[in-house]
Amino acid sequence: MAHLGSSVEYALHCLLYLDQPLAQPVSSGDLADLQGISPSFLAKIFPKLEKAGIVVASEGVRGGYKLARASNTITVLEVIDAVEGRKPLFDCQQIRGRCAIFNNKPPAWMTSGVCSVHAVMLRAEKTMRDELNRTTIGSLTEGIAGKAPAEFAEQLQTWFADRAVTREQTRAVALKKPRARHRSSET
Amino acid sequence: MAHLGSSVEYALHCLLYLDQPLAQPVSSGDLADLQGISPSFLAKIFPKLEKAGIVVASEGVRGGYKLARASNTITVLEVIDAVEGRKPLFDCQQIRGRCAIFNNKPPAWMTSGVCSVHAVMLRAEKTMRDELNRTTIGSLTEGIAGKAPAEFAEQLQTWFADRAVTREQTRAVALKKPRARHRSSET
Repeated sequence: MAHLGSSVEYALHCLLYLDQPLAQPVSSGDLADLQGISPSFLAKIFPKLEKAGIVVASEGVRGGYKLARASNTITVLEVIDAVEGRKPLFDCQQIRGRCAIFNNKPPAWMTSGVCSVHAVMLRAEKTMRDELNRTTIGSLTEGIAGKAPAEFAEQLQTWFADRAVTREQTRAVALKKPRARHRSSET
Repeated sequence: MAHLGSSVEYALHCLLYLDQPLAQPVSSGDLADLQGISPSFLAKIFPKLEKAGIVVASEGVRGGYKLARASNTITVLEVIDAVEGRKPLFDCQQIRGRCAIFNNKPPAWMTSGVCSVHAVMLRAEKTMRDELNRTTIGSLTEGIAGKAPAEFAEQLQTWFADRAVTREQTRAVALKKPRARHRSSET
């Protein structure tokens, strides 16, 4: 198993889609279907991104999510922390202070300053976090734009628009259903 | 919860003790008691360190573990990999290739090369692993030696020697028990 879970992968790929020129906000359900991932799983990720100020949600039939700010201000590290929480590389339990020789009264030289094992971990964690903080959703999108043909943005817009139309039609049909029939089906 | 578990912390601190000038190999049980950690938990860690060629075990009453090689050739990264296995930062599921627009037949531009999200993770993982690979057990021991008073090594030797003596005395007493009594206690 990897250190980072699939929630991080899903969140990042969704944000890359939200960074495309879309006509309207999109639902997490549509983003899930677009990528063949579980809608219920993704539905739990988006509130975390919203809480972290990475996306904003709008209500209603045409509601959905969009990026909360310019994609070149959203770093990969921020997304990871939003989805998984600020998870340290290492949780130092200060076992250096438990040395039986000193009967739970460790001398100052043994416990002063940061534990040397912890210090290595903190350095490694910092280099990793710094690297993850150097890349933004915007820079990833630029990379994709350099590979994708011009029509991709249009195909994406059409796909989301078709989904919205289908959803509205389904809703309209449901609303038109005769009340009596609706009532009888409820009993 | 941290990315690295307490097994890593225990393993590293044990190796620092094994890097002290000790008169004989020490058991994982003694190392556990010395640090106030679970002996059964530690007993599962040492075979992993042995398998990775970090420690060697010797059998018998005076048996135990010692470092398999010079401590300045054992890196923190090696110890982590030995204890937790080679765990990647990120497990790319290639979800970029599942885009519904292309009906499971993604175009080459979409799937060629390393996924840009995965590439960020690989860079971050590399910087972290490089940093963890830069520090050795030997360099950590040097740091401790710079803080510890001269008598610490002696106190440690005495503690382990006392444990070995107690163990041998307990064993000798057990062997001297009258046979008849031993037999009757078995029935």
